[in-house]
Amino acid sequence: MAEITVIGLGSMGMGMAQSLLRAGHVVHGLDISTERMEAFKAEGGAEGSLAEALAASSILVCVVLNAAQTREVLFGAAGAAAHLPQGAAIISCATIAPSQAREFASDASAKGLHYLDAPISGGAVKAAQGALSIMASGTPEAFAAAQPALDAMAATVHPLGDEAGAGSAMKAVNQLLAGVHIAAMGEAMALGVSQGLDPARIVEVISASAGTSWMFENRGPHVVEGDYTPRSAVNIWPKDLGIVGGIAGEAHLPVPMTEAALSQFKAAAEAGDGLIDDAAVIKVYARAAGLTLPGDA
Amino acid sequence: MAEITVIGLGSMGMGMAQSLLRAGHVVHGLDISTERMEAFKAEGGAEGSLAEALAASSILVCVVLNAAQTREVLFGAAGAAAHLPQGAAIISCATIAPSQAREFASDASAKGLHYLDAPISGGAVKAAQGALSIMASGTPEAFAAAQPALDAMAATVHPLGDEAGAGSAMKAVNQLLAGVHIAAMGEAMALGVSQGLDPARIVEVISASAGTSWMFENRGPHVVEGDYTPRSAVNIWPKDLGIVGGIAGEAHLPVPMTEAALSQFKAAAEAGDGLIDDAAVIKVYARAAGLTLPGDA
Repeated sequence: MAEITVIGLGSMGMGMAQSLLRAGHVVHGLDISTERMEAFKAEGGAEGSLAEALAASSILVCVVLNAAQTREVLFGAAGAAAHLPQGAAIISCATIAPSQAREFASDASAKGLHYLDAPISGGAVKAAQGALSIMASGTPEAFAAAQPALDAMAATVHPLGDEAGAGSAMKAVNQLLAGVHIAAMGEAMALGVSQGLDPARIVEVISASAGTSWMFENRGPHVVEGDYTPRSAVNIWPKDLGIVGGIAGEAHLPVPMTEAALSQFKAAAEAGDGLIDDAAVIKVYARAAGLTLPGDA
Repeated sequence: MAEITVIGLGSMGMGMAQSLLRAGHVVHGLDISTERMEAFKAEGGAEGSLAEALAASSILVCVVLNAAQTREVLFGAAGAAAHLPQGAAIISCATIAPSQAREFASDASAKGLHYLDAPISGGAVKAAQGALSIMASGTPEAFAAAQPALDAMAATVHPLGDEAGAGSAMKAVNQLLAGVHIAAMGEAMALGVSQGLDPARIVEVISASAGTSWMFENRGPHVVEGDYTPRSAVNIWPKDLGIVGGIAGEAHLPVPMTEAALSQFKAAAEAGDGLIDDAAVIKVYARAAGLTLPGDA
């Protein structure tokens, strides 16, 4: 069993830390919220200061929001990289650009640390079950050092080669599709409603047709039920599709589908729906066309 | 067993006529191409003039390209509606606007005919197997009169109520999603290629991830194999997404995802790729970013 530090106890990180605990590891959980840290300790998380935790850890799992936070957590003034023992593995899970992953891997290597470019997919429920998908790239040594944690957190690890960046590139491909598909779900459901179709019947018929997608089948029912409890919030998408747009821009690749979806999620956030479920992108359409959706007063 | 006329022996109509034959019906096949008509007769299609065929048919299956052709075939100067016996069923399969379906249903009713708004989905292979999906709406009498043909042509009939228009509306919802998902497949695969990912690996990983769609899993392999043999051609999409845009416009519903996809398919067609497989929309992206795809010289 390994000693492991998880930084970032949000909806994903908390579940991942719990999965590591359940597998029998000694797990330190760190977060800017002391409330979350105490909650994790109450579930069996290890005691000790940040410096003590890191010095004792052979694996650091970094589950923060973006590249800026990843940089600060790993290499900032109080960064983890200065405290981890030589040969420890950093498992970096935030959605970031491949170029940033390569930079972090290089910085880690300069400090004698292994870096696994390891974006995660699957949502909070699968994080808590230890059943995430992880799109991972890094040196064989990074994979080997990270293995005990990967085994506990993931149902599937997609190995994508020995260079950091490939994991983040595949995650960007996935997020492009996922974001576009959610916006398309909203657009298509709104079209159906505008024509008098029953939303529940749309979900039934399309789920059995060539127009279906994983996101359609997952988010469509939220619209049918008028339930926008945030399983995944609107605000994820301006961030993630912004990263996709940045990567594409560097590659001189026009991404009009991504841009159209990004505009719809921004409109949803600007309308005050940033913190509710991303299926609420359909409300942008409903407002524009004066449609009544399930759950509307 | 019924006597049935099929008008339109294209890639869909020919397979549907063959499925009707296989079920034991007497089937007349009509097309502007005498070559196709002769080919169908050679497979067992019935002899006789258009007027004789229609006068003897209790069911007409209309599988033409669009609303203009449907109108001409049904209600034009030499239209079928004038020759069909009272109480016969028209099964109208072209992708058209719901308002047009309602108009045709009303015109048919005025001539003592039943009209089933019955757009089809599934492609040429399933048409030939008698395994289409049909999104159908119409009066109970229209469904009852059409039943022998539906049984022979479809694996699934989605009943959508007793008014013409609902079938076409659901088809529009499906085509919106299908077209957007194909363009998104092209955009996402191009992004991955621009980052050095292997296209085959992209299809593997995304097919097991939240970014997947029916179209991604169906069309992605065409890109991997560099095989643009037209299973479904680029030129379908300017037509079908144009219909979606028209319906949405009447409902004052902005459809930016549809418009972005439409632009990409138009760009593909303008580049000379209109007649090849719709997965070729990725070439629009590859040209813009200078990417090399599988099969490129």
